[in-house]
Amino acid sequence: MKAERPLILITNDDGIGSRGIAHLTRIAVTLGDVVVVAPDSAQSGKSSAISVNTPLFINEHQPLECARMMSANGTPVDCVKLAMFAVLDRRPDLILSGINHGSNAAVNNIYSGTMGAAMEGCLLGIPSIGYSLLDHSPGADFDPLTPFIKEITAKVLAEGLPEGICLNVNFPTRCTPKGIKVVRAAKGRWTEEYATYATPHGTPFYWLTGKFHNDEPDNLETDEYWLKQQYGTIVPIRPDQTATDMIIRVRDIFSEI
Amino acid sequence: MKAERPLILITNDDGIGSRGIAHLTRIAVTLGDVVVVAPDSAQSGKSSAISVNTPLFINEHQPLECARMMSANGTPVDCVKLAMFAVLDRRPDLILSGINHGSNAAVNNIYSGTMGAAMEGCLLGIPSIGYSLLDHSPGADFDPLTPFIKEITAKVLAEGLPEGICLNVNFPTRCTPKGIKVVRAAKGRWTEEYATYATPHGTPFYWLTGKFHNDEPDNLETDEYWLKQQYGTIVPIRPDQTATDMIIRVRDIFSEI
Repeated sequence: MKAERPLILITNDDGIGSRGIAHLTRIAVTLGDVVVVAPDSAQSGKSSAISVNTPLFINEHQPLECARMMSANGTPVDCVKLAMFAVLDRRPDLILSGINHGSNAAVNNIYSGTMGAAMEGCLLGIPSIGYSLLDHSPGADFDPLTPFIKEITAKVLAEGLPEGICLNVNFPTRCTPKGIKVVRAAKGRWTEEYATYATPHGTPFYWLTGKFHNDEPDNLETDEYWLKQQYGTIVPIRPDQTATDMIIRVRDIFSEI
Repeated sequence: MKAERPLILITNDDGIGSRGIAHLTRIAVTLGDVVVVAPDSAQSGKSSAISVNTPLFINEHQPLECARMMSANGTPVDCVKLAMFAVLDRRPDLILSGINHGSNAAVNNIYSGTMGAAMEGCLLGIPSIGYSLLDHSPGADFDPLTPFIKEITAKVLAEGLPEGICLNVNFPTRCTPKGIKVVRAAKGRWTEEYATYATPHGTPFYWLTGKFHNDEPDNLETDEYWLKQQYGTIVPIRPDQTATDMIIRVRDIFSEI
């Protein structure tokens, strides 16, 4: 009897119609049975947001390479939760998110809807990976990533991941990555964050923009460094943000209360 | 010459009109100059979401106890970023978020807009605290928290916090906390996550609900345990989610790529 193929759930934050999720789906169908449940609209910057006060609907789309394609009017995390609750008839062996159009390296992890979905998968105890390409343009070329994504995904399908972590995988743009580095997120911050405007009636308004300032551009332990050297990067991410190493120190601060 | 009073920025995720933020503002004005920049509507479950594709407006409201009160049509993180960029004329000494109407203990930290704002402050290098009360009801009684919030806030104003962390502070409901415990987030997960409905035309839809399942109800190192014993809890939170302790192990997994 033929063994059951692994089940792979795919989502993203750019929406069901994006080229990145189609590319990822085409790779994933070579490794298992694939179901896609993705937002029906762009959800960039949604982090781990959940829809508390709105009803959620699921719509079925035309299959892609035999993968079921569904959308929901929610965030990336909503899509993972809905897939688990209302769509899948068995527990997925793997959750993939992406391929994001744009970087999720460094501090971007915390704002990323792509990584929100991957972290949700991790919280459910399912091996999960977020994939991103450092190129926002509609004409972004995902082809050079294919062998890397296939190999990373196959490895995680075969071996799983250590408990409590998922992977944030970023790829450089323009040409084939020179290789893969497992590193930590670079420390840095966004600066010059808003473009300012005025309405025709003189009311000011603001639009998020910003430049990323890397605090440690020469540090070989960081994702930003290796992405600049044309390497793909893997950062292990732990959704539980408790700073366990700081508990004793913080107890000291509040010892009198 | 009189020394400048410390500047405290306050935000939340329940919106500028909530009772929790008014209570926190009344406490904070006894410790420093206060500016409030909070969402103009409820933003529960917004995590670290940012508004990428919409213009943001700021509105001035009537002051509360001499604190400037402003709202913006964005998320809690948007409010922190906007305050820093467009409202404050000096860098705040402290950022407070809350008091949230409802728990942000355990895994809730990752979905919490209250904690999204506190983490944003931390990423900016400013000591930041999120306060929450385990009571969603409109009639929630914030009075028993006052001395605890005042003492914790004053301590952080005086001593700061270790670099790279902020605080997730939760309080039990009903009566005065027996004390404060510095602990880690309990491990657990949400289950039975959706209520299901059908429209009058037969289309199914879903509404987020769920029950929190605590994986370690008897563990004295966790926030959930002590909240049940009627203690307030402080969890040190590190926004940078890199699992640095896992880098070597993950390198082994991908050593052949």
